[in-house]
Amino acid sequence: MIVIGERLNGQFKDVEKAIKNKDKKIVQDLAIGQIEAGADYLDVNVGTAVSSSEKKEAMIWLIEAIQEATDQPLALDTPIDAVMEASLKAAKNPPLINSTQADPEQLEKYINWALEYDASIIALTMDKDGVPNDVQKRVALAGNIVVAAMEAGLPFERLFIDPIILPVSAIQTQPGFVLEALKQLQGLSDPSPHFVIGLSNVSQTASENSLINRTFLAMCIAQGLDSAILDPFDDKLMDVMITAELLLNKQIYSDSYLSAYRSSKSN
Amino acid sequence: MIVIGERLNGQFKDVEKAIKNKDKKIVQDLAIGQIEAGADYLDVNVGTAVSSSEKKEAMIWLIEAIQEATDQPLALDTPIDAVMEASLKAAKNPPLINSTQADPEQLEKYINWALEYDASIIALTMDKDGVPNDVQKRVALAGNIVVAAMEAGLPFERLFIDPIILPVSAIQTQPGFVLEALKQLQGLSDPSPHFVIGLSNVSQTASENSLINRTFLAMCIAQGLDSAILDPFDDKLMDVMITAELLLNKQIYSDSYLSAYRSSKSN
Repeated sequence: MIVIGERLNGQFKDVEKAIKNKDKKIVQDLAIGQIEAGADYLDVNVGTAVSSSEKKEAMIWLIEAIQEATDQPLALDTPIDAVMEASLKAAKNPPLINSTQADPEQLEKYINWALEYDASIIALTMDKDGVPNDVQKRVALAGNIVVAAMEAGLPFERLFIDPIILPVSAIQTQPGFVLEALKQLQGLSDPSPHFVIGLSNVSQTASENSLINRTFLAMCIAQGLDSAILDPFDDKLMDVMITAELLLNKQIYSDSYLSAYRSSKSN
Repeated sequence: MIVIGERLNGQFKDVEKAIKNKDKKIVQDLAIGQIEAGADYLDVNVGTAVSSSEKKEAMIWLIEAIQEATDQPLALDTPIDAVMEASLKAAKNPPLINSTQADPEQLEKYINWALEYDASIIALTMDKDGVPNDVQKRVALAGNIVVAAMEAGLPFERLFIDPIILPVSAIQTQPGFVLEALKQLQGLSDPSPHFVIGLSNVSQTASENSLINRTFLAMCIAQGLDSAILDPFDDKLMDVMITAELLLNKQIYSDSYLSAYRSSKSN
């Protein structure tokens, strides 16, 4: 699994406070902690910590604070073009662009960024009409995304398709749509793109959020998910992720397979 | 999910002791406890508590002890023909026959029992050559099983196909084979037979047995598993099972969906 750590997001109180106070230590501790817990990418999102006009400055400050502590690649997470461009320039290592929708114009712009900056890209199976309320439109939009990447010459290993999960508490049919879409999208192309979800969305507002997250993660991994934006500090979640990979023969079994995985990450 | 409680098995020390001492209370408490925890069937297996010549008597004693306390249907679990026949006669309500292999002669005999006793049947995707070391033979044997049931007139809702899970600690490719077989077997027939596994096998000898069981269960449910032989006293396992069903829209969401499920079972 390619783990994208979600914790460097201004929607979390500690990060909001760090951005407002320019407190690098909080940011750097969260960066290193997530890497040690298994994060391959660090998602960076200023959230609502600052007003729109200050977002570019805040994002660059956040990126630079992280990069003083680590070279781990970043997932640049902003919907504002100018902030994304500045972030792409500031990122030391090839980042992951989070994210584009599947409308042709936006897709083209983001794929061009990915090509220009040697970056990878998350493309959502949604368009200007919003998140599909079925499986078929998700699959169709994923097809459009793959074709656009192929035509532009973006290698599929740099393409992450996100079938978009909505909260189960709000729309209970959606998790099943995502699972079925993942299933149908296996074998979409050879080599395959990556498949990613923003896991915590599934449990938004739910009281059993951690249980719902880890159960859904195991189900998605069974259907071919190979990446997720998640909280690597949730040990029970990481235990399930590591175990699901073990069961798919992606890690060698030993009685201490959990600690073996964690040692391999914290070195 | 159709839950088959695994705890009334002479391989567990408490049950072995109860069989040897003819202690009905232990047996009846395990029966009622499993039902309250969510068991739809109670698996009954004398295990190695007694010698071969005493197995029939011990099995009948066990069945009668359970049936003094509850009418919940039983899963009759013995490889010995004479014990199975006596058990089928002793069962008050239509039981589940656990289990036949896919060799034509054995399949025919067991299907005939199912028809004669109004029973359901677990059929394993293995034959005299043992457990398949791949996906394809599992799928082929499942096809044979479905054809045999159809030709004999056994309704598919009384057929449980078991793709057989082996311990991940021993053969790490096997869980992936089972997941892929389940995936390929969806849509095998309309209506579909049930799909079942003996869940605890996957974690035999593993130190993280409960974690491995519940992770694999979520993965199998994502691939269409709708029944499992498992330990309903493992609360964390049951939490994952209930949550997986919630995510597949088989239970209505509420913040208290776990306790709602449990109340519905213990009434």
